[in-house]
Amino acid sequence: MYSSRFLELLVEELTKLPSIGQKSAQRLALHLLRVPKEDALRLADAIRDVRERVGFCGTCGNFSEADPCALCTDPRREGGLVCVVEQPGDVLAFERTGAFRGRYHVLGGALSPLEGTSPEQLRIRELLERLRSGEVREVILATNPNVNGEATALYLSRLLTPLGVRVTRIARGVPMGSDLEYSDLVTLSRALEGRREVE
Amino acid sequence: MYSSRFLELLVEELTKLPSIGQKSAQRLALHLLRVPKEDALRLADAIRDVRERVGFCGTCGNFSEADPCALCTDPRREGGLVCVVEQPGDVLAFERTGAFRGRYHVLGGALSPLEGTSPEQLRIRELLERLRSGEVREVILATNPNVNGEATALYLSRLLTPLGVRVTRIARGVPMGSDLEYSDLVTLSRALEGRREVE
Repeated sequence: MYSSRFLELLVEELTKLPSIGQKSAQRLALHLLRVPKEDALRLADAIRDVRERVGFCGTCGNFSEADPCALCTDPRREGGLVCVVEQPGDVLAFERTGAFRGRYHVLGGALSPLEGTSPEQLRIRELLERLRSGEVREVILATNPNVNGEATALYLSRLLTPLGVRVTRIARGVPMGSDLEYSDLVTLSRALEGRREVE
Repeated sequence: MYSSRFLELLVEELTKLPSIGQKSAQRLALHLLRVPKEDALRLADAIRDVRERVGFCGTCGNFSEADPCALCTDPRREGGLVCVVEQPGDVLAFERTGAFRGRYHVLGGALSPLEGTSPEQLRIRELLERLRSGEVREVILATNPNVNGEATALYLSRLLTPLGVRVTRIARGVPMGSDLEYSDLVTLSRALEGRREVE
């Protein structure tokens, strides 16, 4: 039993977050009661702001409060290179690497006959629209290396290659730092298949 | 780089929470963008409410919006039994067990010569005040089983025993489900010392 109903409500809401259990939620709630009040309210405001002000970029389909978004309008990024991903989280993953200086295109999912996701439900029409401008030289297919992601990449490559744009797929192979002995068959086969000359 | 400044701010605020790293913060932020808007705003409101409405119970010192709090006024709880803990989180830990039906007293910390915490900074005067009513039969010292917690328990037992109240300390021994082979020396010695007749 909680000594405060508001504390109880906060724990309840925190428990709804992914990978936050009862104990973590209690620890977080008590933390929010302990820190300076402004710090806690800043988090509350940040949550509210993100829901009240953030929409989507009409170009890349990523979350953004501006349309087009900061990534699509950044003049230092190469407009000729478009990395196609499934979800906004994938953009963040690539941005963490700092290794990509092109633009993105968020599909909003992957083709899935099982879940009933068809090409019309993904932002493929918008991708074709972007290619129409002629600025895009290369489309990098960076959908997930699983059944749905591979199917989506194959579908897109068949759709885009005839348009005269270079279509590439991110390399799939053994992850860095891993142990070959414990690699799964599919990954190892793919790593062999995708072998390249040593430079 | 983030496509939205508000998303970036939210990730930044989430990263300040304990045991939430950059990746978890991003996952939580994207989750809050994906769920129905009301769900996200409910969390924001719960954080705001907890900071704007929750204060302290003058009796037990726990977080509460009412004074005295729900635990201190619950007639089904035994007023003669007071469990003394260091922090509000400890109350939650005991409440999770459902094994305690008495009341609590939150000290707000433990004695620590190193950190400069002296008896006057803990809610000891308030504890003495509670004992004065004569209702309390037993005080259970449930401070942490570490140097500061043990010192605090010893200090309190010397202070309270002369007042004619029963003073007990929670058992310290080998935790349930653990392996004796890997128990540390202090715990194992304490478990021997605290042995009891098999009932």
